[in-house]
Amino acid sequence: MPLRIARLVAVLITAAAAVLPLAAQKRSVPASSPLTLQEQGSFFVGGRDVQSDALSTNPRFPSSGTITVDQVYVHYQVPVSSKRHYPLTLIHGCCLTGKTWETTPDGRMGWDEYFVRKGFPVYVIDQSWRGRSAGSPAAINAAKVSKTPIQGLPGVFSASHEGAWAIFRFGPEYLKVFPGMQFPLEAQAEFWKQMVPDWIESLPTPNPTVPALSELAQKLGGTVLVSHSQSGIYPFQTAALSTRGVVGIIAIEPAACPASSDDMKPFKGLPILVLFGDYVSQSARWSPRVTLCREFVKAANAAGGRAEVTLLPEVGIHGNSHMLMQDKNSLTVADWLVRWVNQHVGPKPF
Amino acid sequence: MPLRIARLVAVLITAAAAVLPLAAQKRSVPASSPLTLQEQGSFFVGGRDVQSDALSTNPRFPSSGTITVDQVYVHYQVPVSSKRHYPLTLIHGCCLTGKTWETTPDGRMGWDEYFVRKGFPVYVIDQSWRGRSAGSPAAINAAKVSKTPIQGLPGVFSASHEGAWAIFRFGPEYLKVFPGMQFPLEAQAEFWKQMVPDWIESLPTPNPTVPALSELAQKLGGTVLVSHSQSGIYPFQTAALSTRGVVGIIAIEPAACPASSDDMKPFKGLPILVLFGDYVSQSARWSPRVTLCREFVKAANAAGGRAEVTLLPEVGIHGNSHMLMQDKNSLTVADWLVRWVNQHVGPKPF
Repeated sequence: MPLRIARLVAVLITAAAAVLPLAAQKRSVPASSPLTLQEQGSFFVGGRDVQSDALSTNPRFPSSGTITVDQVYVHYQVPVSSKRHYPLTLIHGCCLTGKTWETTPDGRMGWDEYFVRKGFPVYVIDQSWRGRSAGSPAAINAAKVSKTPIQGLPGVFSASHEGAWAIFRFGPEYLKVFPGMQFPLEAQAEFWKQMVPDWIESLPTPNPTVPALSELAQKLGGTVLVSHSQSGIYPFQTAALSTRGVVGIIAIEPAACPASSDDMKPFKGLPILVLFGDYVSQSARWSPRVTLCREFVKAANAAGGRAEVTLLPEVGIHGNSHMLMQDKNSLTVADWLVRWVNQHVGPKPF
Repeated sequence: MPLRIARLVAVLITAAAAVLPLAAQKRSVPASSPLTLQEQGSFFVGGRDVQSDALSTNPRFPSSGTITVDQVYVHYQVPVSSKRHYPLTLIHGCCLTGKTWETTPDGRMGWDEYFVRKGFPVYVIDQSWRGRSAGSPAAINAAKVSKTPIQGLPGVFSASHEGAWAIFRFGPEYLKVFPGMQFPLEAQAEFWKQMVPDWIESLPTPNPTVPALSELAQKLGGTVLVSHSQSGIYPFQTAALSTRGVVGIIAIEPAACPASSDDMKPFKGLPILVLFGDYVSQSARWSPRVTLCREFVKAANAAGGRAEVTLLPEVGIHGNSHMLMQDKNSLTVADWLVRWVNQHVGPKPF
């Protein structure tokens, strides 16, 4: 098709989509059609000013002064939509950034855009001290000029391809693959490029991301916090700080749930989904975590909670790795999540 | 206006925008109207696998293995448009990330979206080893376990608020403001949150971002490289590696231009704009750089180049700081750039 005609067709499709009732649009417009946004942008939540005399060891830049750290970068898109969905806030895991939720390694649409197409405002963060959220170089520079001993160097680590393989449940060990596993391993080189150094060991508990998420939840007037892996516990810690603005929690393959002996009051009445993929029983790392999350869910529900643990194979979705938002059936999982949110969280009240 | 009616109006505006001729649309649709994208997403260019035995000092994570570094994160949006514009690739400067081009500190639309609304596909990167583009923690960990001397610690620095003030030409010194200066200082707290540690001193020359930009330019089949400050030289270094895919260079307030004694062959016939804001003659830092860029432009043009240096006051735009993409008149500057690109680069050939 010549390009001029292709562009004309695209314009006509956009025009048709805009005048059709929105309910019909959702069914009739494929994912590859143009996307219309009401609004998009980025901003920070959290952050504090700190003074330091170890900002630089290069005489071209002054070593003393003020920098701002602990803030959390937030990128958002709001669809043109007739539904009053609460926003979804997507919180990535260990050694990764907000890129987690964008275009998959093999080039398919990420959940960030798919949920917008399903009518949800979507907020994607970079955890504190990672990605576009600044940390401080002061501990490195102080050691470099011998102001502090080398033991004062920050805890910062990178997950190797070899080590991450089994943690992400691509298979039981490096280069072995679970039968039917859905992660697009043919594009693994692109996936490894997503991984960044992780400073979490240098940060206090709760991670500064947690109060920043509370600020975001209150600013939005209600959001479903969707965490993954390392950040699995953050939404629970956020609700424990303040339940204001937290209208639901989806913890995807959380590294930890709250202990069953923790205070369950923050979770009373709150829709909570703890979601795992496939092959969990074959993983010495993940299997005990599912057990502990089940104990939490039992305790939360005994205290008036609305919590559940779901393993995707239990609802007929098979082959999912730990990186299920990037698996080949990622949009099937997303559709299931949309139904869960609609049933358990529901629309914003007028 | 009740929300249902507001949404109906938004839908009708979208419908009208879609059926109007696109030339009329550009004039009639305000910046706050819905935005329709043909496509968006993210991916990486560049990158290489490295082996290390210093990935972690925490026994929970293996210290040995393979990680991928030097890649460059790219986020892009492509408008629904009738124009055959070449894409713009936006390359941030020192101590910053791709956030530079997004929503301004005081909450106005960033150039990333504005150029899309003007019909350009826009690609925003995070420089290598910064933001969502991974570096390696190995030099830190090797020093921490005394495998290497502390002199092997990486060069990494943060620019302080106090030091950045004059460099960004908010005023002649910290807290003093040039008369008529357009940066939204009332939102400076949000701006300081954009600044991140900078590892550039630990990286080779040219920065790994440069070959990654060349890969991107070739992948796109032509792009205008738009650099800022520290990255000012990168587009020139990219063209020197290979002119393939580089259809224009806009160096905004470059820290350096090529030397006038450099090989000018890569720049023959290439549209090049070196753009500075206001107050340059009052800055001991920036004034000599303008002089050196003028010498480069003279040498480039003597060798068949199409290069120019422009100071915004020369074209009637006043009050611009070094962060002119965030100044209160940022869209006036963007409009001027769009005209420059249309005049000097022009559309893609059919």
